[in-house]
Amino acid sequence: MAEANITSPLARVDSSLARQGMMQQLGVYLVAVEAGRCELGLPFSDKVTQQQGSFHGGAMGALADIAGGYAGLTVAPTDAEVTTVEYKINFLTAKTGGDLHAIGRVLKAGKRLIITQADVFHIDPDGTRTLCAVMQQTLAPVHKQY
Amino acid sequence: MAEANITSPLARVDSSLARQGMMQQLGVYLVAVEAGRCELGLPFSDKVTQQQGSFHGGAMGALADIAGGYAGLTVAPTDAEVTTVEYKINFLTAKTGGDLHAIGRVLKAGKRLIITQADVFHIDPDGTRTLCAVMQQTLAPVHKQY
Amino acid sequence: MAEANITSPLARVDSSLARQGMMQQLGVYLVAVEAGRCELGLPFSDKVTQQQGSFHGGAMGALADIAGGYAGLTVAPTDAEVTTVEYKINFLTAKTGGDLHAIGRVLKAGKRLIITQADVFHIDPDGTRTLCAVMQQTLAPVHKQY
Amino acid sequence: MAEANITSPLARVDSSLARQGMMQQLGVYLVAVEAGRCELGLPFSDKVTQQQGSFHGGAMGALADIAGGYAGLTVAPTDAEVTTVEYKINFLTAKTGGDLHAIGRVLKAGKRLIITQADVFHIDPDGTRTLCAVMQQTLAPVHKQY
Repeated sequence: MAEANITSPLARVDSSLARQGMMQQLGVYLVAVEAGRCELGLPFSDKVTQQQGSFHGGAMGALADIAGGYAGLTVAPTDAEVTTVEYKINFLTAKTGGDLHAIGRVLKAGKRLIITQADVFHIDPDGTRTLCAVMQQTLAPVHKQY
Repeated sequence: MAEANITSPLARVDSSLARQGMMQQLGVYLVAVEAGRCELGLPFSDKVTQQQGSFHGGAMGALADIAGGYAGLTVAPTDAEVTTVEYKINFLTAKTGGDLHAIGRVLKAGKRLIITQADVFHIDPDGTRTLCAVMQQTLAPVHKQY
Repeated sequence: MAEANITSPLARVDSSLARQGMMQQLGVYLVAVEAGRCELGLPFSDKVTQQQGSFHGGAMGALADIAGGYAGLTVAPTDAEVTTVEYKINFLTAKTGGDLHAIGRVLKAGKRLIITQADVFHIDPDGTRTLCAVMQQTLAPVHKQY
Repeated sequence: MAEANITSPLARVDSSLARQGMMQQLGVYLVAVEAGRCELGLPFSDKVTQQQGSFHGGAMGALADIAGGYAGLTVAPTDAEVTTVEYKINFLTAKTGGDLHAIGRVLKAGKRLIITQADVFHIDPDGTRTLCAVMQQTLAPVHKQY
């Protein structure tokens, strides 16, 4: 039933992602979601580049932030949203072309705080997968406002 | 002379910002720049929102990252670019409408590493200024590739 | 009256610091405390060195963590303790001899989360003051267990 | 031969750890080391407690910092030391008694920068293993000064 679907991890993330203007603008797409884990993708385009023509660190940071946030959303109460308290990201290498995939994982699902990590991989058109960035994040469940 | 202008803090940041597809896309503009300090602005639009209609954390993170990076660029050798090694951002409050301003400041300008902090303020249409996020960042000067 | 003193910022921090085995062990002392701000000191000794003979990063990290935590404690409800959710520290320079002072400041005092920053200075025996490290931190007020 | 042993991962870490006054003071011991990975232990004692009697966050932070640093040391040039540029740690749970183990792993071994992660586990006397903290860290190889 629709009611049940709304609270499935996939439905929750899909419905929230569609409401994110920035993510729609950049071209972020959902790869996979399950309880405690979310994988998002971002294709290379001139909307996400920095001054040397590679994927912008801001794009990697935003993608990792959202992947961690949606991993957290899947374990939050069904009447809650999650908000990012803070995150920290290390960049390992810069990449041009292909897609970025960010995989967020929940490490701790507390009532007041959710702790996650995310890995950002570059997926080359030839299939090569390279770790580009790693993130640690703190989320807080908050009352859903819409 | 043009040659000299190219290495002024303003000219360096302006020229680099124009090359950043993502920042152009989001609407980021330069407010002020001097040696060791850079202030950037970002107007509210549906390109920078999250699922509840406020400025996206990813937009705040990208703006802070760039403001810190450009503050660093002003103290890097003139034949160098800077690349973000890592940053960490804490979000203090969510805001809708108005503009965000991020002010990056250099704390340490080393040969191999530059350490910065940035504050992100929300500027309400009525002029109210609210601290929204704080960032710490590590940059590395790298050889300019263009 | 004793009852009132217990809830003054100074009394709260002093009473808590005396209970911290690790801080007693390392020789941490209270410099100053007021609502939203706490300054702690740590003298150089062979209890706080790393392999090259300078102050250990772990000692700087612990001192900054505690200074931020006690700044937070001064703004938490009087029946609460605070616990560190996370922190991030950048090291600017290594120092030998003298004292370290860490100054924690509250940026946001929320009901569920408190956000702080701390600066760690080295105080040379000749009085020279050098910024050594900067920290950002998230705290959570928790029920006092003693 | 002694010359060769000095550059084995185990010998490098062991020799450096013995020089760290703070780690000797706290009781930190080496569990295992191989290229790109280092595991350290810390027994519970009143030298490492906070005000509620649990392991101090500062002790967890120092242990994680060192485990990451030594993981990095194993992949640095043999005439180099490593210094911590920055780290960020999230605390998941507080523990009393038993031992802490921190496992540092190298994610990227660059010439100028080494990126690591560390997990801190609590090992209960009954053998139960609980993830207590996670860290991300940036190291820089530096010239050995001793």
